[in-house]
Amino acid sequence: MKLDERGILIVISGPSGVGKGTVRQALFNMKGHNLTYSVSMTTRKMRPGEVDGKDYYFVTKEEFEQRIKEDKFLEHAEFVGNYYGTPLDKVNEQLDNGQEVVLEIEVNGALQVKKKVPDCVMIFIVPPSKQALYDRLMKRGTESEDVIKQRVEKANREFKVAPKYDYIVVNDDVNNAADRIMAIIRAEHARTSRSIDKYYELIGETDENSEENIGN
Amino acid sequence: MKLDERGILIVISGPSGVGKGTVRQALFNMKGHNLTYSVSMTTRKMRPGEVDGKDYYFVTKEEFEQRIKEDKFLEHAEFVGNYYGTPLDKVNEQLDNGQEVVLEIEVNGALQVKKKVPDCVMIFIVPPSKQALYDRLMKRGTESEDVIKQRVEKANREFKVAPKYDYIVVNDDVNNAADRIMAIIRAEHARTSRSIDKYYELIGETDENSEENIGN
Repeated sequence: MKLDERGILIVISGPSGVGKGTVRQALFNMKGHNLTYSVSMTTRKMRPGEVDGKDYYFVTKEEFEQRIKEDKFLEHAEFVGNYYGTPLDKVNEQLDNGQEVVLEIEVNGALQVKKKVPDCVMIFIVPPSKQALYDRLMKRGTESEDVIKQRVEKANREFKVAPKYDYIVVNDDVNNAADRIMAIIRAEHARTSRSIDKYYELIGETDENSEENIGN
Repeated sequence: MKLDERGILIVISGPSGVGKGTVRQALFNMKGHNLTYSVSMTTRKMRPGEVDGKDYYFVTKEEFEQRIKEDKFLEHAEFVGNYYGTPLDKVNEQLDNGQEVVLEIEVNGALQVKKKVPDCVMIFIVPPSKQALYDRLMKRGTESEDVIKQRVEKANREFKVAPKYDYIVVNDDVNNAADRIMAIIRAEHARTSRSIDKYYELIGETDENSEENIGN
């Protein structure tokens, strides 16, 4: 039994190349979880087979821009002429339904989210060593030395934001990392700040009627 | 791999009759843990079969009182003419060795411990309902109604300290509760405040020599 029944917004982030996506995947492959993705909102055309509200929320450009003005996105960006964003109200609905909503995003997006949802749980995935990350960035493909250098520099900047996160999880082994994140989610539901309201409901007022209850 | 290798002081407390001892026992019965008890210090005589430093640290009354003066106890009490206490330096040695030290104590003692070891993890065990606790307190034995009434009143006072704890864990099922405490311990090791020093060691300075490392 957990006191806190609302879902938690879990933000998984970390320096480029650390393997956030793989960790997130391992997390969703675990048994007995109650995790869900947030559904993004977009202005691009719906493709055959896509379902509104499942793959994306499809809206017009005007609607999207109105939502930006009203500060209704956790984060949003423009990509090849279309908008993409995470709608705050939809995420809140999922959380109210008791689902843990997992957002896997870049460092800059993650810090935006923390401002809008202060009680989200911020998890920073890190490599077992700096060199391990460099090796990954270099193995990624056929890019020129310049591109690799830019990536390394980006990762080095991103390494510095760790103190802004609630937890630091080492991606030495992807299942270990996923396992630790599951422990974090379980633990967070028991945190006093999340549980105290429900606790007071549970025990009621503590100094009235105590005698009446004894005789039952 | 966890960044934070020092053990954590886990304080398990809660209102009288909630079943702290049973939860603690279930916790120690779990597999793969690294939990240990703290060894108490006492002025009472060593009994046959007891081992100094294992069952207790046996010291003289003078030594104990000197330690009280020097504020070297996490908490201490007098019982039937003898002192009993938890020696802070010994607990720190265990923590330095990477062991998680579990203290199961009454509410008043727990709040003392928090003051002396601010980075301990305070866990408040609560019953699934107020009535469940009353039922337990009444079943406990053959005590008079007056004694039961006193216990209920004590529990009602103790219910109110919950906000001073880091976590609230419901003892609806003893194994569930133990399981959640294990998750809390795992999660706490990943907390940024506990991990950040080791993290900086791991990644070193982030803006020097990054280019040199690329070519390897």
